[in-house]
Amino acid sequence: MREKKILLDHGSGGLASKELIDELFLKHLDDPVLARLEDCAVIDNQKGRLAFSTDSYVVDPLFFPGGDIGTLAVHGTINDLAMGGARPLGLSLALILEEGLDLEILEQLIISIKNCSEKTGVPIITGDTKVVPRGKADKIFINTSGIGVVPDGVQVSSRMVQAGDVVLLSGSMGDHGITIMTRRAGVELDGNLQSDSAALHEMVGKLLGNLPAGSLHCLRDPTRGGVATSLNEIAENCALMIEIKEEQIPVHREVAGACEILGLDPFYLANEGKCLAIVAPEVAEETLQIMQDCAEGKEARIIGNVQAGTAGRVMMRTGIGGQRIITPLHGMPLPRIC
Amino acid sequence: MREKKILLDHGSGGLASKELIDELFLKHLDDPVLARLEDCAVIDNQKGRLAFSTDSYVVDPLFFPGGDIGTLAVHGTINDLAMGGARPLGLSLALILEEGLDLEILEQLIISIKNCSEKTGVPIITGDTKVVPRGKADKIFINTSGIGVVPDGVQVSSRMVQAGDVVLLSGSMGDHGITIMTRRAGVELDGNLQSDSAALHEMVGKLLGNLPAGSLHCLRDPTRGGVATSLNEIAENCALMIEIKEEQIPVHREVAGACEILGLDPFYLANEGKCLAIVAPEVAEETLQIMQDCAEGKEARIIGNVQAGTAGRVMMRTGIGGQRIITPLHGMPLPRIC
Repeated sequence: MREKKILLDHGSGGLASKELIDELFLKHLDDPVLARLEDCAVIDNQKGRLAFSTDSYVVDPLFFPGGDIGTLAVHGTINDLAMGGARPLGLSLALILEEGLDLEILEQLIISIKNCSEKTGVPIITGDTKVVPRGKADKIFINTSGIGVVPDGVQVSSRMVQAGDVVLLSGSMGDHGITIMTRRAGVELDGNLQSDSAALHEMVGKLLGNLPAGSLHCLRDPTRGGVATSLNEIAENCALMIEIKEEQIPVHREVAGACEILGLDPFYLANEGKCLAIVAPEVAEETLQIMQDCAEGKEARIIGNVQAGTAGRVMMRTGIGGQRIITPLHGMPLPRIC
Repeated sequence: MREKKILLDHGSGGLASKELIDELFLKHLDDPVLARLEDCAVIDNQKGRLAFSTDSYVVDPLFFPGGDIGTLAVHGTINDLAMGGARPLGLSLALILEEGLDLEILEQLIISIKNCSEKTGVPIITGDTKVVPRGKADKIFINTSGIGVVPDGVQVSSRMVQAGDVVLLSGSMGDHGITIMTRRAGVELDGNLQSDSAALHEMVGKLLGNLPAGSLHCLRDPTRGGVATSLNEIAENCALMIEIKEEQIPVHREVAGACEILGLDPFYLANEGKCLAIVAPEVAEETLQIMQDCAEGKEARIIGNVQAGTAGRVMMRTGIGGQRIITPLHGMPLPRIC
C-alpha cells in the first residue's frame, strides 16, 4: 500500500481495490468465508427461524471515548439481531469511503472491527467497498447487516407484551448520546463518561437459556430516540400502557450533569449497549438477577410495568409522586449520533 | 408529510422518522415482515445452506436510461446471491440521505424499489434510514444486503472451475458503464443505449433446475471492473488459464462507438444485468439454450474455455488470429458507476 490515502481507484473494482482488500481488509479480517471473496457468503444453515437486520453508521466523530464507528457497527447490528431473540451467525461490512481518507484511519477502524468481531464471536463474512469523490461523503460511512437464527419456540416481539408484564432496563441511560454530544461540542467533562457501546447477544442468550419458555416477551435496544421513544414504540405495538418509576431509572452522575448544562433529557438520548426487557411478572426477579450477573447488565433495574390503561401511552411516576406522559422524541434532531 | 425536503430530524429516530417510515416507506413497501418494524426481520428458515451478500450503491446520476440507483440496489444484491447459486429470500434496504434531498426524489426511488421487488419476487424485509447534514453525502446512498438459500447439492464457485470447462456470457458488455459515463459527460448517443440493470436469479434458477447436478461450476456478474476483471478473478481462484475469442463477445454498436470516442475498452466496463457462466463442456450447448430462452440471456454466447495453461492468466484470441493477455482493471478509476 504505497499510497497513504484512499483514492478513487480503490473503489474501481480493479487492482487497487484488490490491493486494499488483500493488504488491509483480509490482513485483519481473516474469516475463511470472507477470504473466499465470492459474490456472496455461503454458510451452513442452522435450526430455527432466520433473523436479518441492517444498520448504517454515520457517527461524527469517528472515534470517541468508549468506542468508534467500527465498534458501533459491529455491536449495533449484533444487538438488533439479539433483540429479535436471534443468535447472530455473521455480519456483512459495507464501507463508503471518501476519497482522501487517511489509510491509517481506515486501518485503525478495521482493526477495531476485527477485535470486536473476535470478542463477540460474530465473524464478518461478506463485504463491499465504494469510494466517492472528495466532498461527496464524510470520511467513512459503514453499513453492517447481520444474519442469525431464532431458536425454535422463541418468540420475542413487542406484540407479545401483556398487561401485568414487568419492564427492565439493563443499565444507565444516555452514556452514548452524551459522550458524542459533549465530544462534538468540545466540552470536557470530569469523570469517566464514555459510550456504552457493547454487544448484548450473550446476555440475551443467557436470558433465553435460563428463563422459562415464553416468559421473555420483548427486547429492544433504545438507540436513536432513547428509552422514551423505544417505550412508546412498544406501547403502541402492544396497544397497552407502560408505567415507569423515575427513581428506578439509572442515570450516571456525569450524564445527569451534562444533560442539565446542555438542556437535554436523558430519556431521549441514544444508548448503544443497553436493552429494555419486558417479561412475565413471575420471572422479573430472575431476569434481573441474570442481567446483573452479566457485565453488560450489572446496573440493570426493574423500571416499571405494563398496564391495561390508555393504549400506546407511556407514563412516568416522578419521585415526588406526580405523573407525566413520556412522549416519543419530537423535534430534537441529533444528527450522526450513530 | 408537510415538508418537501429531508430534514435532519427525519434521521433522529423520533416522530419525524416515524412519519417518513409510515407515510413514505410503508406506503409503498408493504411486506408484512417489514411492516412489523422490529429491530430485525424474522422469517421461516428453508432447506439448504445460507447465502448472505451486501452492496452499497452510490451511483451518480441517480436516474439514467434503463434504471436508477433503486433498481441497481435491488438487482445488484439479488444477482450477488444468484451468483452463489442461491435463491434470494429477502433484502434489507438501508438509506443514507443528505439533508435537503427532495422528498419527491426519495419517493420516486422508493416506488422504483417497490416495483423491482415485486417484479423479482424478492421482498424488502428490513431497513434503516440515516440523515447526514447538507454537504456530508451526495443526495442518497443505498445499501442492500440479501439473504438466500443454496439448494442442497449446489456448489457454485470459482474454485469449482476445471480445465476443459466452457465459458459463457449472458449478453453484451458495457451497456451500464457507457450509459452512466455518457450521461455524466453530457454526451447524447443515437440509438437505444441504456443500462442493462436486471435481476438474474430466475435465469440462474432455470440453469440450476435443468442442468445435470454438478455441471454448472461458476457464476459471476461482471460489475465494477467488467468482464476482464471478473475473468481474471476466476482464473486466479481456480489457478487455470481462461481463453476467450474476441469475435464471440457481444458488444452493442452504440457501446462500441462510445468506447471509441471516449477511449475506453468494453472489457473493463461495468455491467448490471449480465453473468459469466462456466460449465462442464458436455452441457455447454444446453446452458446456452437455457440462457437464450430467458429475456436476460437472449444474447448469450459461448465466449471461450478454461485451459491448463498459465495459472491465473486470461488470454484473448483476436479476430485476425493474434493473442493478447487480458489484465484486470488497473488505474482507470470510474467512480460511482454503481
